[in-house]
Formats: sequence, structure tokens, C-alpha cells
Amino acid sequence: MRFLHTADWHLGRIFYNLHLTDDQAYVLEQFVALAREARPDAIVIAGDVYDRAVPPPEAVSLLGETLSRLALDCKVPVIVIAGNHDSPERLGFGGRVLARQRLHVVGQVAAEAAPVAVADEHGPVYFCPIPYAEPAVVRERLGVEAAGHEAALTALTARACAAVPAGARKVAVAHAFVTGGVASESERPLAVGAVPTVGAAVFAGFDYVALGHLHQAQQAGGAHIRYAGSPLKYSFAEAGHRKSVALVELDAAGQAAVEEVALTPRRDVRCVEGFLEELIAGGATDAHADDYIAVKLKDAGALLDPMGKLRRVYPNVLHRIFEEPALAAAAATRTDHRRQSEAELFAAFFAQVTGRGLSEAEAAAAAGLIEAFGRREREVGA
Amino acid sequence: MRFLHTADWHLGRIFYNLHLTDDQAYVLEQFVALAREARPDAIVIAGDVYDRAVPPPEAVSLLGETLSRLALDCKVPVIVIAGNHDSPERLGFGGRVLARQRLHVVGQVAAEAAPVAVADEHGPVYFCPIPYAEPAVVRERLGVEAAGHEAALTALTARACAAVPAGARKVAVAHAFVTGGVASESERPLAVGAVPTVGAAVFAGFDYVALGHLHQAQQAGGAHIRYAGSPLKYSFAEAGHRKSVALVELDAAGQAAVEEVALTPRRDVRCVEGFLEELIAGGATDAHADDYIAVKLKDAGALLDPMGKLRRVYPNVLHRIFEEPALAAAAATRTDHRRQSEAELFAAFFAQVTGRGLSEAEAAAAAGLIEAFGRREREVGA
Repeated sequence: MRFLHTADWHLGRIFYNLHLTDDQAYVLEQFVALAREARPDAIVIAGDVYDRAVPPPEAVSLLGETLSRLALDCKVPVIVIAGNHDSPERLGFGGRVLARQRLHVVGQVAAEAAPVAVADEHGPVYFCPIPYAEPAVVRERLGVEAAGHEAALTALTARACAAVPAGARKVAVAHAFVTGGVASESERPLAVGAVPTVGAAVFAGFDYVALGHLHQAQQAGGAHIRYAGSPLKYSFAEAGHRKSVALVELDAAGQAAVEEVALTPRRDVRCVEGFLEELIAGGATDAHADDYIAVKLKDAGALLDPMGKLRRVYPNVLHRIFEEPALAAAAATRTDHRRQSEAELFAAFFAQVTGRGLSEAEAAAAAGLIEAFGRREREVGA
Repeated sequence: MRFLHTADWHLGRIFYNLHLTDDQAYVLEQFVALAREARPDAIVIAGDVYDRAVPPPEAVSLLGETLSRLALDCKVPVIVIAGNHDSPERLGFGGRVLARQRLHVVGQVAAEAAPVAVADEHGPVYFCPIPYAEPAVVRERLGVEAAGHEAALTALTARACAAVPAGARKVAVAHAFVTGGVASESERPLAVGAVPTVGAAVFAGFDYVALGHLHQAQQAGGAHIRYAGSPLKYSFAEAGHRKSVALVELDAAGQAAVEEVALTPRRDVRCVEGFLEELIAGGATDAHADDYIAVKLKDAGALLDPMGKLRRVYPNVLHRIFEEPALAAAAATRTDHRRQSEAELFAAFFAQVTGRGLSEAEAAAAAGLIEAFGRREREVGA
């Protein structure tokens, strides 16, 4: 059994005000070509196919066209789940009809676990789609007491395992933050005021776990528990990543061997460093001058419109990284609010207004409210 | 050949701050039952399936579930087009895959006309899906000069006819305002500063024209050119309508006979008139007191919280109609801005600011801008 594992396409992503649709179409073209050449028995896409609940129309068209090519032209069964960025209802449109054509798009947690069986010469492999869902949704849908993310996912994986015949090979397709995984800058936190991570033990019993959420390809708690990573770099913190797709071979005993197949972006995301004049001179002969670039300038004094000048040779220079000693020192004493959670921001605001910290009960009440707002926001698809 | 013709479902509609999803699910249940009992050879849904480009998630689920039941459970080919309320790209998601399961959802004007052939004992009938599109889109997609709505639709119907074998029976499925049709209050105008209506002659050659847009069931320029009307009353102006679905029989020669099959709403939309005390007394024994109600009070003097009192017997009284002579007279001298088009509003604003009317060139420039904004708004799915 050979299958492709990918995740975190984030179609409709905007990167420093630029729509990445063309870049995404470019890399998905490679993915479709790979599906055609590698002739996998199945394809799994482990969530965050869109960047937001209501993606732009071009992203909807791109996903529809790509999935149609995989299912109809390549004739490969495709299993897609919703991630925390996707709207379960929107993504799941027409799922029952699409499934008749090998396209299994699972947006919401279904009333019953419905593993997708794909057979090879050794018998069936059961792909268990486990879309991302908040604990409250799992509690309601499954009628369980699951308090947090780990308990909720445990209930879902247990249900999935129970739906697979004993002894059969099985693959989980899930969207979660497994303890020990390394985050990049471009993931959206899964939980506010709660523990979003889950132990790898929740996936005990699966022969392979196809994960989505973390954007760097990596193992998490075992060689067979993997993040495929995003197909493109979605932040400058990912400049050093090598983006890829996992090509997984599952043998008769369920032993998985993974090959990372590299993807080539239309434009790379990278950081350059040097003196302004030096960079401008180098850019003139840079074959990849249209890459998405963050620049760190070594020049000591003030510069006149350095970004404008750089843009003439690097048209997609998007960001300037400051690290002049004085600025860095100033930055160190300042809190970067973008790195604070909603709960932390509220606590800071409360302290500033009242002159005292939150009591434990107040903090819990605030966390509850923030979670409720977040849930409502996702529900209305904002 | 027997087929069901419906249109203007407007799923996700909000009526005086009430979400109508439950009412829509109720009436669609009847529609599915009808499809099961009448055993039609096809079903056509002529646009405005959603109320807006980005419908709420529950509307997406309801449409997906309803279409799945029609195509999979009833096993009837379904042809759906986008109306002016729908987002062509969003509605068209997965269209190529869905079409393999008899579900033909046509959001965008396709690169080529693709009639759907459904056969009976007399041979095939070609259903030609013609989704709503603005003239600018038609010009670009078909490479024609079509200046206005009529020219654009003429180009589309001509292309559709050319794709059907000569002599074969054919049915157009379109979303348009045919000259002479009677509008209700709940349609959204198709054009700003332009002529949105089209002559019935653009549909010459079709044996039946299944129209959407106008919410009252009616003929338009011929017995075989029909609006099915919306399945529910979407304004109090429609209180007198009898909502229905058209059950069409097309004989061997292409002659159409139409039966209007009535639909029963979960709650009716109606207007009541009388003295407050009278209405309150009557409401106590009204078996349909939970209908959506607009009330016109005959009482002469001031009343203390009449709507609050009425709500105790009519929980869904939503609107008070004023027609006291003094108020009516005052209203007559006032312009109702809600009934003015964007172009009229801008002209009034311009006159107020500058003290003079718009020149012809200025009016044309303004109309162009308004149209461009409207198009952009629909594109971003706002």
C-alpha cells in the first residue's frame, strides 16, 4: 500500500498583503503530477486545506479543480479532513455525493466513524478520517465527557479503532498538536486558555498517523506518527524548511516506510543579510530575484528609502528585519503582543485597569468567555 | 418527460432578524417527498439557491443534504444554476465530480455550453444550464460584444442552442428578469444604472424555459416560459402568493403542460388588520398564531406597547404597518430611500452637495463606478 500524505495547504493565504493563489496553484500542479507518476493507492490531506472558514472564491475554485483532477483524472481515492482553519460545514458540502467518486471530504465529526477501506494485495487498509473538532463539539456529538483536547481526541480515535476489523491495518488522518512537535510561526493556536497538545499515545494502535497542523515536516512521538508539513513556506521563520510531501509505503505487516518528496515553490521565501549597496549589486545578477524576501541590513547609519531601492532589484522584498543593537535592546524590554494569547492580553489589560492581577476564578471565567467567542466566530464563519 | 422546476430557495435568508433555516428545511422536506412520489425524470433549480454569496454554514449543510437526497436517494438528475445572489465559484465547488452522480451544479459560465441530456421513450431532452452572469463576464468568457443583459443572454442562449442537435427537445434553465414579469419586494435588482430586463424572444427555440429570479410563480411572454417562484414568502408583499413548484410534462413534440404543486410553509407569512383589543382576543383562538405576521392597527389614539401586547398571542408578529392618515401623508412627502437605487441615491447626494444635477457624462461615470463596486463586492464574496 502506497499513499501520499500532505496537509496544511492553506489555500487563500495572504502573505504580507500578497495573495498566494498563484504560488499555491503552482505547487499543487506538482502534487497532481506526483499523484499521476507515483500511482499511489490513496491520498490523504490532513486539514487546513483552506486558510480560513470563508476562503476567497479563487481558493474554492483551486481546491475543487485539484481534488477533481486527483479523484477523476488520476482515479485515486482522496481522504480530506477539516483542520482548525476550515469551516466544517462549508468544507463538507456535498460530501455524500463526492464520496461516491472516491472523494472523501470529511468536514464535521460524523454521527458514526466511517473508515475508508482501500485494498492492496495484502487486504484492506482502513483510513480513519478524524476532522479537527473542539472538545465541546466532540462532547455533544459523541455523548462523552471529554474535558480537553486530549480526552476528545482519545474518544475519537477509540471510536475509529472500534469501526475497523481487528487485526486490519489502519491509518489515522488527524489534525492536532502532538506533544513535542515543533511549531513554526504560521500555525494558529488550537486552544485559548487550555492545553491544546495531545500525547502521541492517543494514536496507539494505528500503523501510520497522517497529521496536519504543524508546518514543518517532522515525526511526533514515533517514526510512524508524522506531520507532512505545509507545501509552501507561510512565514519567514520557515525560510530554512524543505517543503515536501510524504510518500508512505505500508507493508503487509503495517510497517511504514516514508520518503519525503520535495516540492519546488514558484518563488522561494528567504532571508538575506548584508549592506544595502552590496545587496543591490548582488540582486542584479540574482537568478531568483523575484523570491519573497526578508532583508536584514548591516548598515549603521540612517538610510534613505532602503526598501524602495531594494525593490528595484528584488521586486518581492516584503519585510525588513531590524537587529541594530539599540533597536534590539529596545525590543527586548517591550512585550510583543502578537505573541501573547487572548487570555494573556486580557490579564494584562485587567491588571492595567484595576491595579491587581486576576483571581483564579476570574481567569477561568475570562477563559470561558474567550473560548465561547472564538467558537461563535468560527461558527458564523468570520 | 416529466420534470420539477423550482427556483429562488434563498437558503440562509434572514427575515426581520429571524433565520429562516428551519422553515426552509421544512418546505424542502416536502420538495424531496414530491420528488420521491412524482418520480420526475429531472429536477431543475433556476438560481438563487442561497440568499447571499457567503451563506451561513447551516444553509450550506441544508443545500448539500437536500441535493444529496435528490441525486442519491431519489436517483433523479438535478440541474442547478447560480442566480444573482449566489457566488458562482462557491456554488460550483466540485461540480465536475458531482456531475458524475447526476448532480449538475453550474456556478460559472462554462468555457463551453454543456447541455445535460435526459432521455425518455421519445428520445433525449437537452437541459441547458445558463447561470446568471453579468454582461462583462459574458463578454470576457465568450469573447462577444454583448453590451447589456439582453445581448449577453442572447449570446448564451445561442451558444446553448448550437450545442443541442437540431430538432431535439430542449429546456433552458436561466435566471433573468423577463420583460413584463411582476416583481415582489424580495428580489435584488439585477443591474444598477442599466436595463436589467430581457425580452422573451431571447429564449426562442426552447420548448420550455425554467426561470428563476421573480418570486411569484408566473408566465413571462408565453405559457412555456415560466417562473416557478420561491418556495416560501420572503416579504409581506408576498402574503397573497400561493407558493408552489412547477411539475412540467413535455410531450413527444416538446409541448409543455404545467401543474403547480402547492407547498405548505411551516409558518405562513400574512398581514392582519383590526383594533388592538380585537386582534388580541382573536389571537387567543387562532390556530396559526405562530405565523409570521405584519399588523395594521385601526386604533386612532396612542397605544402603550401594542407590539409587546400582540406578541403575547402572536409570538412572531414582526412588523407594524402604519396607515393612519396623518402618518401616511407625512410618509408621502418623504422619500423612502430604501426604494431608491444606488444611482438615484448618489444623484440626490450630489445635488444636495453641489446644488446642481448630474450631467449625462457624470451620471454615466457614476453608474460605471457603482457597477464596478457591485461586481467587486460580489467577487470578494462580501
